[in-house]
Amino acid sequence: MSFRQAARKFSSAGFLTSERYPSLKRGPFSRLSDAHVAAFQKILSSDQVLTDPDDLAPYNVDWLKTVCGQSRIVLRPRTTEELSAVMRICTEHRLAVCPQGGNTGLVGGSVPVFDEVIISTSLMNKINHIDPIAGTASCQAGVVLEKLESALEPEGLMIPYDLGARGSCQIGGNISTCAGGLRLLRYGSMQANTLGVEAVLADGTILNMMNSLKKDNTGYHLRQLFIGSEGTLGIVTQAVIQCPIRPKSTNLAFLSLNSFKDVLSTFVLAKRSLSETLSSCEMMDSACVTSVEEKLGIKCPLENSADSFFMIVETQGSREDHDAEKMSNFVQEAMAKELVVDGITANEPSRMANLWQLRERITESLSKDDYIFKYDITLPLAKFYEAVEVLRRELAPFGNEAKVTGFGHIGDGNLHLNVTASQYSEKLAKAIEPFVFEWTAGVGGEHLGRTRHGLQESQVPQVRQVPRGDRAHAKHQELHGPARDIESLQSPSAILKMIIGADIVQR
Amino acid sequence: MSFRQAARKFSSAGFLTSERYPSLKRGPFSRLSDAHVAAFQKILSSDQVLTDPDDLAPYNVDWLKTVCGQSRIVLRPRTTEELSAVMRICTEHRLAVCPQGGNTGLVGGSVPVFDEVIISTSLMNKINHIDPIAGTASCQAGVVLEKLESALEPEGLMIPYDLGARGSCQIGGNISTCAGGLRLLRYGSMQANTLGVEAVLADGTILNMMNSLKKDNTGYHLRQLFIGSEGTLGIVTQAVIQCPIRPKSTNLAFLSLNSFKDVLSTFVLAKRSLSETLSSCEMMDSACVTSVEEKLGIKCPLENSADSFFMIVETQGSREDHDAEKMSNFVQEAMAKELVVDGITANEPSRMANLWQLRERITESLSKDDYIFKYDITLPLAKFYEAVEVLRRELAPFGNEAKVTGFGHIGDGNLHLNVTASQYSEKLAKAIEPFVFEWTAGVGGEHLGRTRHGLQESQVPQVRQVPRGDRAHAKHQELHGPARDIESLQSPSAILKMIIGADIVQR
Repeated sequence: MSFRQAARKFSSAGFLTSERYPSLKRGPFSRLSDAHVAAFQKILSSDQVLTDPDDLAPYNVDWLKTVCGQSRIVLRPRTTEELSAVMRICTEHRLAVCPQGGNTGLVGGSVPVFDEVIISTSLMNKINHIDPIAGTASCQAGVVLEKLESALEPEGLMIPYDLGARGSCQIGGNISTCAGGLRLLRYGSMQANTLGVEAVLADGTILNMMNSLKKDNTGYHLRQLFIGSEGTLGIVTQAVIQCPIRPKSTNLAFLSLNSFKDVLSTFVLAKRSLSETLSSCEMMDSACVTSVEEKLGIKCPLENSADSFFMIVETQGSREDHDAEKMSNFVQEAMAKELVVDGITANEPSRMANLWQLRERITESLSKDDYIFKYDITLPLAKFYEAVEVLRRELAPFGNEAKVTGFGHIGDGNLHLNVTASQYSEKLAKAIEPFVFEWTAGVGGEHLGRTRHGLQESQVPQVRQVPRGDRAHAKHQELHGPARDIESLQSPSAILKMIIGADIVQR
Repeated sequence: MSFRQAARKFSSAGFLTSERYPSLKRGPFSRLSDAHVAAFQKILSSDQVLTDPDDLAPYNVDWLKTVCGQSRIVLRPRTTEELSAVMRICTEHRLAVCPQGGNTGLVGGSVPVFDEVIISTSLMNKINHIDPIAGTASCQAGVVLEKLESALEPEGLMIPYDLGARGSCQIGGNISTCAGGLRLLRYGSMQANTLGVEAVLADGTILNMMNSLKKDNTGYHLRQLFIGSEGTLGIVTQAVIQCPIRPKSTNLAFLSLNSFKDVLSTFVLAKRSLSETLSSCEMMDSACVTSVEEKLGIKCPLENSADSFFMIVETQGSREDHDAEKMSNFVQEAMAKELVVDGITANEPSRMANLWQLRERITESLSKDDYIFKYDITLPLAKFYEAVEVLRRELAPFGNEAKVTGFGHIGDGNLHLNVTASQYSEKLAKAIEPFVFEWTAGVGGEHLGRTRHGLQESQVPQVRQVPRGDRAHAKHQELHGPARDIESLQSPSAILKMIIGADIVQR
């Protein structure tokens, strides 16, 4: 199967990333030769080196099937040492690389753009150690989130975050992309919960920062730099995660509301009323829920009018009776204050799972028949939904051909902003960008992951040749240095040059 | 008043730091001249430039009154711009500096060793903004912890950490030293809760990293490097702190136990039983409590035999009835399992405050009449109290002349290890160090702050000339580069050289 065939078979867009974004230029890297393959085969066994085009195809296409790379090789190291040896060879021969975790990212960051060597962490799937007293788990980067969660369950512990992609996404990718997920407001960010990291730099250097103590004050917190650095500083190979006590009871309220103002007031009430038990607070607009209903045949249990808003409020705690009473009091108060139009509560796992589908399967439903422009932005809460409204006004001339929807984590100000259309259109793309980035930056927000246009890295480790370059980033880059690319990743000094200033040269 | 007089008046040791540690050498820095003072006076008003020896004395001596510097000037900028201008002058004229926050540190890091210019953040005490919806507070570095806490109270919010020094310690110092405190196990570390930082580098460059979003994934998490870097990378000037909902109810149990094994089992039980409400879990050995009883006249309400251990278990929640029931069930279970010998519970603020004194005033009581060697170490929980037992065996030859005691945050594995003696003794000092550092490193622990011998920075921002150099750090330094000193802080490239490698030179 050729790359073009793969693109047609796997990608809804039907063409290669490099054709979609002609402005992206391949860097001055080597082309993969038989000698390179032989060098890799010397250190890896045959099942760890994939070169058959049929085997390569799924690694070249992202989960949304909207971008398609042209890598000719996938390497699957089992150990840190193997990965280090692979990186040494790549650096020595100037081969660009694209690290890949579970390939569950939604912003095109997990697949190559050109012919980068794909380094998959999938075989690095060993759980090293679970410490039930301290509440920590140490594992390799390729361990799948759900697998680690299952291993923690018998110990009465849990992973402090949860994502829809839990069945495929990997711990290393979660760290490298600083995954937030559904329970950030309760258990904190990856910065809070990643106690230790081991990473391999571009030249193969292994950096051991595998602390497992909750309070680690010795030296600089270098491991924090690797969290969310999307592999540009190195590839995360192992980690220690702080694991809270597994809740004994979970309660959920599914609410409908009349306005975003009421969503905000209900969020504040939930924080104050549910306090230490609040574990998730999510919002979806009517159009998102309609999409799940229509495209996936899942019924919304509450009336869904065009200007409805919906919320999922979840609590986790240690006493079913206490927790149910708190949730019931919260819903009653929200209704008494007329913040909420209607609501249902649930605490049986299957019922809760059904209600969660109305939130977790939105991306799947939006991308089902349509072309989707997807933006992942963090906003001050007062501006959270204004992003959707402003973009709707901006795209009014497109009529039904551009549907703007919004949902996301109200608890941490993270909005998933989507524009769906029946097909890709250059005119629509130009109407959305850079407008959406400029507006976001203008209201003090941040753009977390950029899809399609610009292909910002996200969701998996990245040592890529694609620069991060949208205008919303410009201010930040001014501070932190130039855009990252593989060029500047060939030496530690160049990495650091990006961090603080430009007055550094390599010896 | 001369420095020697000041040392005699203020320091229990009665002599200057530079005399106590003759191995510490002053770097090749300029001596303060009238021209320097005039330059500072040009940018600061007269009350911001202190040169009168009487005014200087309290800035030269630490809170424990055991180290005494010889600075001839204290500068008190009010704004980031003023502090930046001060740093520019210092760099230009090669004047060493010692940033100082609340000067509440216990490890001698907040005062100069030689004649460093003291840069006090005390007048940078403005609270910029409190956002009650998002739950964030933005303030200058010199805001006192207790003052910010008071400002948050009417908004129903709180600071996510608490320290005994709350009445004097400053937010900038808390960040620069990565303060842990009494509630880390509930609300997380400074890395988890510091959303934004503004810092001034050695050359006066202002680095604005004042994010206030809970999820910040844009660019590298550079602000994280400043947390706990003790001012060696720059001086923190402003910050944004994440503020949780203020609890409506607090419950406390004061417990006595027979062994450290029981302390550990009780901690695990508390985590599982009190779960989301557990806010603090502290342990003290019998000797610590005896010291508070004898030196401060505070009565322990439970029987205190020589091999007793005590614990404070605190919960914070939103429902008094639920929380009291959880606490009562926990204590009953702990007693039924015979983990706990005796216990009392309390929820009236004054009663709880009294019980907290048995923990919070230990350092004060231990240092009252005696000379104290104080070590702040983080240990794997299984080894937590072994540190005390091992050191007791090691110091057995000293008999009653060396009393080893231990207390600390069992929740995050942070032990305060103390050796008290009637007076300073070189022989005793040599018996303790480097033994204690080597043993700690040997069991996988970490030494957080070093007192007296080596004078590691802690508790305030530091751009100092004292290298961090104890053996427990050696392994870490191997990884992160050479010890930090003011020499290498004169350029960003040199700062970065320390972070990853040695292959960087300044242009």
